[in-house]
Amino acid sequence: MNVSIIGLGQTEVKEMWETSIRHLAWYAIEAALDDAHISKVGALFVGNMLSGELSQQNHLGALVADFAGMRGIEAVTVEAADASGGMALRQAILAVKSGLVETALAVGVEKMTDQTGSAVTSAMAYGLDADYEAMQGLTMAGMGALLMRRYMFEHGVGVADFAGFSVNAHANGAANPLAMFRNRIKPERFASAPVVADPVNLFDMAPAADGAAAVIVTSRERAMDMVPQPVEIIGSAAATDTVALHDRQDILRLRAAEISAQKALAQAGLTPNDIDLFELHDSFTVLAALSLEAAGFAARGEGWQLARDGAIGRNGRIPISTFGGLKARGNPMGATGMYQIVEVARQLRGLAGDCQVADAKIGMAQNLGTSGATAVTHILRAAQ
Amino acid sequence: MNVSIIGLGQTEVKEMWETSIRHLAWYAIEAALDDAHISKVGALFVGNMLSGELSQQNHLGALVADFAGMRGIEAVTVEAADASGGMALRQAILAVKSGLVETALAVGVEKMTDQTGSAVTSAMAYGLDADYEAMQGLTMAGMGALLMRRYMFEHGVGVADFAGFSVNAHANGAANPLAMFRNRIKPERFASAPVVADPVNLFDMAPAADGAAAVIVTSRERAMDMVPQPVEIIGSAAATDTVALHDRQDILRLRAAEISAQKALAQAGLTPNDIDLFELHDSFTVLAALSLEAAGFAARGEGWQLARDGAIGRNGRIPISTFGGLKARGNPMGATGMYQIVEVARQLRGLAGDCQVADAKIGMAQNLGTSGATAVTHILRAAQ
Repeated sequence: MNVSIIGLGQTEVKEMWETSIRHLAWYAIEAALDDAHISKVGALFVGNMLSGELSQQNHLGALVADFAGMRGIEAVTVEAADASGGMALRQAILAVKSGLVETALAVGVEKMTDQTGSAVTSAMAYGLDADYEAMQGLTMAGMGALLMRRYMFEHGVGVADFAGFSVNAHANGAANPLAMFRNRIKPERFASAPVVADPVNLFDMAPAADGAAAVIVTSRERAMDMVPQPVEIIGSAAATDTVALHDRQDILRLRAAEISAQKALAQAGLTPNDIDLFELHDSFTVLAALSLEAAGFAARGEGWQLARDGAIGRNGRIPISTFGGLKARGNPMGATGMYQIVEVARQLRGLAGDCQVADAKIGMAQNLGTSGATAVTHILRAAQ
Repeated sequence: MNVSIIGLGQTEVKEMWETSIRHLAWYAIEAALDDAHISKVGALFVGNMLSGELSQQNHLGALVADFAGMRGIEAVTVEAADASGGMALRQAILAVKSGLVETALAVGVEKMTDQTGSAVTSAMAYGLDADYEAMQGLTMAGMGALLMRRYMFEHGVGVADFAGFSVNAHANGAANPLAMFRNRIKPERFASAPVVADPVNLFDMAPAADGAAAVIVTSRERAMDMVPQPVEIIGSAAATDTVALHDRQDILRLRAAEISAQKALAQAGLTPNDIDLFELHDSFTVLAALSLEAAGFAARGEGWQLARDGAIGRNGRIPISTFGGLKARGNPMGATGMYQIVEVARQLRGLAGDCQVADAKIGMAQNLGTSGATAVTHILRAAQ
């Protein structure tokens, strides 16, 4: 790719009723600028899904650029449902690779908790197919339920077999001071959790939250002169699938996730065996299982076994959700993909604190839009 | 830039209650693919502002890619209020310039007329500053009124002095079979038009509409092999300003428009004198005047004189709104910037029919978000 990360920033993930969306974005941007020891970038890409619906504010590019003290720079909002964050980084990378922009900042931001739960549920469903899914009453939770029920039917597993994903996410979230949920849970608690949309229970599903995370990128050459610990982006690819589940030949195959992972791995000249940790999109436990399968870490129908066997733990074969994942860190929709990037980069810089994966050299982040209608995969490597 | 346009597509601009947003986008994409003699591109950028608010549909990238027969490709939505279309093209250019994408399609699409006028007025105001402008009741029309009133005060002109912009737009729209309004108007009719937001009257302001327009770009080398009449993009630049008018030192100076025009002209190695036509953002007549000043075609306070003197006519010194502009062609917010590009490119290819500007070789398009909080300028040249 020849593009490197020179700055990281993130806010806590929680309910922040006192903080406006522009403040949220600014807190993450300020931290990223400080980390990179710069005060301005050439272009700003804001990943956001719901600001119009929930804050009556579109046009975030110009708004955030100005509020962050960078009035005048090129800026735009990028949206792909809950893959907006990852896609914002993708645009920043394209901008730097184009040669027209020297340094680009991608910030993912979402402000969800000022509204009632029903307003948020409705707005999140705008990521589904409005005419053929949401109009029939499908919600994001309902979508997760369709996927999970089919997975259980096809592969002969029960709800309890997904517990390991949630237990792992909460265990890691407990070690992340920025996480929304820092409570460990036991499999028994998972088994007795209230049902949200049968069979999805409260611990299968990631919580709506407020949060923002930011990443600054520039060319690898410039990065090495600018900061002591740049992180190289060695793979970047995006792909799409049908938005409506019923249009897919096989709803248990995340085609966009497969395609983007394969492309990113090919760019990096790597195989899944080379990946030291994988920040995947566990908005539902079933999506964690399907993502492991799509990216090549498990055979079809066997993703859930990695949770059962402890392979996804911090010391396992392929650690996932190392800062709590969407489930425990929290899922501010348009910001989620950027948290994944910040988390992988912190692991590679050895700055993950109690969440640190030992000897992490290469990490993968994969951000999905809804059921994987959008997928964007990035592979990062510690500078050598 | 080394990027060229190889395909153009657009729909009529009008009220299309029977057409969904995905159909609208597809009609423009189909025409652009046909024009380029291809069936698929490497990446899709959807310029849209209001689909979430007015159609309950986000995630348009994946949705439109699939519906257009390109399931699997990289796709994302780009939003910058009514500059979304121009910014979508900007991302397509960056993608091609990056070397990671061979051909990219930018489609601007907006579906506004299924909702009541008050819902549309509210949603359009999401492009303003929600906390400091819209919350006080400011609308897009109110924003135009603030600008126009100040312009009249500072420069000693009256409402009637803006008539020429509207008369010109309607005269050109009358020659464009795709335009929403094909009626010529006289200055007397302008003078007696009902007031929308004092002093903005019905003919100062562009109408909400449905529409979609699409452009396909690739490298200049590939373009020359692919189509007989590629159009070269020789300048592309975007900039921002404060979203809230009250944050500007001088609300009659469109700083983002100035910066983006100057950058694009510098890239092209040109001055305003070299531009044969200028598709500017005449969402309000006062913005037409201010845009002429910002881009260097008139001195401060003298933009309105170009309308009075006939300089903006088809045979004038700097023809504008040659297919009717936002005013008469119609203003489907997120699609508007893409219509501008399609129109300039058609002029340069000599395909503008009754709207043709004689000997048009170099054209400029400038798309604004709200009062110019976002500005994106492109300069196109007929292939040599």
